[in-house]
Amino acid sequence: MLTRLEKLRQALSDNGLDGFLVTNLTNCRYLSGFTGSTGWLLITKSLAGIAVDSRYVEQAKRECPEFVLMPIKGNFPDWFFELATGSGAVKWGIEPSDISMSAYQQMTDRIARDRLSLQLISTSNMVESIRAAKEPVEIDKMTQAAQLTERAFEHALSVVRPGMTERQLAWEIEKFLRENGSDPVPFEVIAASGPNTAMPHGRPTERVIGTGEPILLDFGARVAGYCSDFTRTICLGEPDATLLKIHTTVLGAQLTALTTVEAGMNGEQADQLARTVIATGGYGDAFGHGLGHGVGLDVHESPRLGARSTDILRQGMTFTIEPGIYIPGWGGVRIEDTVVMEDRHVRPLTTARKALRV
Amino acid sequence: MLTRLEKLRQALSDNGLDGFLVTNLTNCRYLSGFTGSTGWLLITKSLAGIAVDSRYVEQAKRECPEFVLMPIKGNFPDWFFELATGSGAVKWGIEPSDISMSAYQQMTDRIARDRLSLQLISTSNMVESIRAAKEPVEIDKMTQAAQLTERAFEHALSVVRPGMTERQLAWEIEKFLRENGSDPVPFEVIAASGPNTAMPHGRPTERVIGTGEPILLDFGARVAGYCSDFTRTICLGEPDATLLKIHTTVLGAQLTALTTVEAGMNGEQADQLARTVIATGGYGDAFGHGLGHGVGLDVHESPRLGARSTDILRQGMTFTIEPGIYIPGWGGVRIEDTVVMEDRHVRPLTTARKALRV
Repeated sequence: MLTRLEKLRQALSDNGLDGFLVTNLTNCRYLSGFTGSTGWLLITKSLAGIAVDSRYVEQAKRECPEFVLMPIKGNFPDWFFELATGSGAVKWGIEPSDISMSAYQQMTDRIARDRLSLQLISTSNMVESIRAAKEPVEIDKMTQAAQLTERAFEHALSVVRPGMTERQLAWEIEKFLRENGSDPVPFEVIAASGPNTAMPHGRPTERVIGTGEPILLDFGARVAGYCSDFTRTICLGEPDATLLKIHTTVLGAQLTALTTVEAGMNGEQADQLARTVIATGGYGDAFGHGLGHGVGLDVHESPRLGARSTDILRQGMTFTIEPGIYIPGWGGVRIEDTVVMEDRHVRPLTTARKALRV
Repeated sequence: MLTRLEKLRQALSDNGLDGFLVTNLTNCRYLSGFTGSTGWLLITKSLAGIAVDSRYVEQAKRECPEFVLMPIKGNFPDWFFELATGSGAVKWGIEPSDISMSAYQQMTDRIARDRLSLQLISTSNMVESIRAAKEPVEIDKMTQAAQLTERAFEHALSVVRPGMTERQLAWEIEKFLRENGSDPVPFEVIAASGPNTAMPHGRPTERVIGTGEPILLDFGARVAGYCSDFTRTICLGEPDATLLKIHTTVLGAQLTALTTVEAGMNGEQADQLARTVIATGGYGDAFGHGLGHGVGLDVHESPRLGARSTDILRQGMTFTIEPGIYIPGWGGVRIEDTVVMEDRHVRPLTTARKALRV
């Protein structure tokens, strides 16, 4: 099996590039192991270097033993052009969705001013597409994160009761995750109740949780850098007919997607499988977001499952399947698992109960 | 007093702009109150609009009652040009340090393709410079965050003991912050010990804390969106002569800066006041980062205090003063307070004990 760096060098060669500047921090971590918050990689056929300022020199030495340490000082274009020129590479790939317009302008201004022979070439998903298909060691870490997430859900079920606030419940979940092996969680725990569940990404409030209403829990763990992403919608006491119908519709859509999404489909086709079920149930306009997104070192990464996504779902990819229905003023329901694409079908990393009543 | 929006409109007029596209999420929150993770503001002389996709429509309605809600769908350039053209504004300021090179290229491609009369104009710190000088209501929130941070430090002093790991101590601090009123903390708590303190931004490890060695604690709270940032270096048991000398030098540099930084200085001049003390102590090469940075809705914002910073320190600005000395292999010491610039001098928002021995 090719190493990550070998795969990237293959992609550079395929794209006629001599060098590649990694500005995206997650890509930097993926390739080098560096976990700091400021650092760049310079990759050529013969060089794998990490450029960090004095705050991160010690950390880079420890975390990236296979990379040449390049201590830097001062402004980005200054040190970059010195290092890039020194490396001998001329055609440098850059990451245009990560690099800011002002940084890019500083770079092109410098090239013009100093009449450098160096070229900057826009690329797309060079590292992201390698990252999307996970190695077994990555699936192991994601499985650990998923299992911890399920334990936190069981914990939430054991403590949730009418009278708690959303914030209290969210904190119970986060504390459990952190005290049982999670690094800082990949996104703020969502614990929404009643009408607040109509906001797919609402932050927990002081609202008191009641009976007979939707309670939406959306959270994930992070283990050795890898994320999980998980949602369940529950109800304390008796749900009314509307909540029952909406929950059943979402569950039907989710189970349909889990059983019918196949390798080789693109993101739009996968999305359509669940969307059809929701539209048939009469809630076509109430499923406003896409079916899912890749999960890995980032909680949102390639591939994307949704309208107009041409991303092909391939073996080893890990992504969410999370249809939802949201009715402003009333509330919403979402059910989400993180899955891995195996030979042909997806296998959910989380299988916790999906029943509405608790 | 002018409102934030009035100040921005004044700046637009001063820069000959008809419209302004806010892509930076913190700027978006500052101007509109929106706390979601995806949203844009479109500001003209007569319009203050917030553009959000379906996930955030309900949230924007609640949080931004004074803004026109613009529900959007699809790709960024598509909806932006439709809204921008509809507004009648032609010269649009954009935020080049926030907008990605690929988004900018999509926008300019579209302007060329459709022969739009619209112009995109790079701006610099339009909203950031307004944000830098805090209103009294903002200082109140930062004071609350600072006071909570000091209580968490007292808690840390009451629980720290030889035999704990860095991770355990970091979690004790974070748990205290969260259970006593902090929103998710603005950055991962740093609890480093022994040689790990040589990494200014090291993440907590499983290393067991011992006696006679530096223990560096760097953390902050977030209250109503506003951050604090605070560092102390302590020692359990007897420090050796090196640790004593380094701690005394850093403390001298910090106290010097606290008493001599004045309104009207620029960031480089302020930095120099502390740097001279450290250089005189013989550790000039070991203070590798700048003296400080602005703090507010972001934990790193304008102004910057360090080499080559021309930012002028003005009334109402809140920033850190945090000199440090780091010796690879041995360890490091940093002492940091967040301060507010008043009439002429700075007033620390945190005053917790700075003694080395605990």
